[in-house]
Amino acid sequence: MWSQTTIQLSPKTRGFHLVSDEVLAQIPDIQRCQIGLLNLTLQHTSAALSLNENADPSVRSDFEQFFNRLVKENEPYYKHIYEGSDDLPAHIKSSLLGASLTLPISNGQLNLGTWQGIYLCEHRNHGGARRIVATLHGESL
Amino acid sequence: MWSQTTIQLSPKTRGFHLVSDEVLAQIPDIQRCQIGLLNLTLQHTSAALSLNENADPSVRSDFEQFFNRLVKENEPYYKHIYEGSDDLPAHIKSSLLGASLTLPISNGQLNLGTWQGIYLCEHRNHGGARRIVATLHGESL
Amino acid sequence: MWSQTTIQLSPKTRGFHLVSDEVLAQIPDIQRCQIGLLNLTLQHTSAALSLNENADPSVRSDFEQFFNRLVKENEPYYKHIYEGSDDLPAHIKSSLLGASLTLPISNGQLNLGTWQGIYLCEHRNHGGARRIVATLHGESL
Repeated sequence: MWSQTTIQLSPKTRGFHLVSDEVLAQIPDIQRCQIGLLNLTLQHTSAALSLNENADPSVRSDFEQFFNRLVKENEPYYKHIYEGSDDLPAHIKSSLLGASLTLPISNGQLNLGTWQGIYLCEHRNHGGARRIVATLHGESL
Repeated sequence: MWSQTTIQLSPKTRGFHLVSDEVLAQIPDIQRCQIGLLNLTLQHTSAALSLNENADPSVRSDFEQFFNRLVKENEPYYKHIYEGSDDLPAHIKSSLLGASLTLPISNGQLNLGTWQGIYLCEHRNHGGARRIVATLHGESL
Repeated sequence: MWSQTTIQLSPKTRGFHLVSDEVLAQIPDIQRCQIGLLNLTLQHTSAALSLNENADPSVRSDFEQFFNRLVKENEPYYKHIYEGSDDLPAHIKSSLLGASLTLPISNGQLNLGTWQGIYLCEHRNHGGARRIVATLHGESL
């Protein structure tokens, strides 16, 4: 089976957000898949997708603090500055974290570790709704 | 053909480890695949998988030094601190390096470059055994 | 359908290069694919592949400046130094950015966002031609 759909995430504040439920609710075909893979590709260059800890919100707020210090705004050598001081750092963070995930499906469910969830890493101050192309393929149940 | 198995890696010390042989020995079905892809997804949020240099161990020790300096322990702004000073940095390193790889199979073998190997990036002081969901699909030989 | 080919990119100067057209011109089978995935795996450990902004060249030059500051040459603790001062930093940048991408295909085309393109991140001063194993699979048109 192959199934492909473009899903949309509601606008998020700048920061790291746990979106597993929001993503999976829009891909019901996963339940029909015995063994397979789900590819999620974010169609944006100033946000990212990542797998990380799904329980403690302080992990996500610490991530935001860390990445803001790692990729500072307003560095004097930046040339791509006309879309705001958050823009070029957002592009860099997107490439550091990655815009695409390919994840295993087993018995109709995403087969992640107990503590793993999908993060939308929103690096713009006002990023708006984000689109993800979700491509699922595998063997049917 | 589709094939999916959960494999386990022996406990490793904190650092970067070349695990190509340990991984591949547990996925013999690769030999039955003419053209295909292997997805490896680590079910943990404080370790990572990466492709890098497979010959000189000093690359791996330099990586450990670099990442410890990039993501420091005990930063005063960290809030997720109750699982030890190595824990939040391990989560950040995991997202920087990534927990999942999708790699080509050709003629019954992983088709990597001559100098490429699979790294398990163990970011905890005592991470224990690590699980990987290995999903293989392709055309049979 | 499954299709796999090893493509080569012309030698590039150190820096970030938009290579979407150079890559896609060598994978005409994409046009035969209705729904599918394209895996691109770079067979090198001192360069990387990434998705990012496809319009303004200053994003790519800012990336080069940023990553040179993030991963400095000639750090006194580096031990892997005998292939030149650009070598170990190139390995680290490769793992930070990643050597492999898996991207959606829809209606015979790569289905990326309007502003997304494929970057070859060349981290060596003289990296030479780079090889990519391109694996395509999906449903035929």
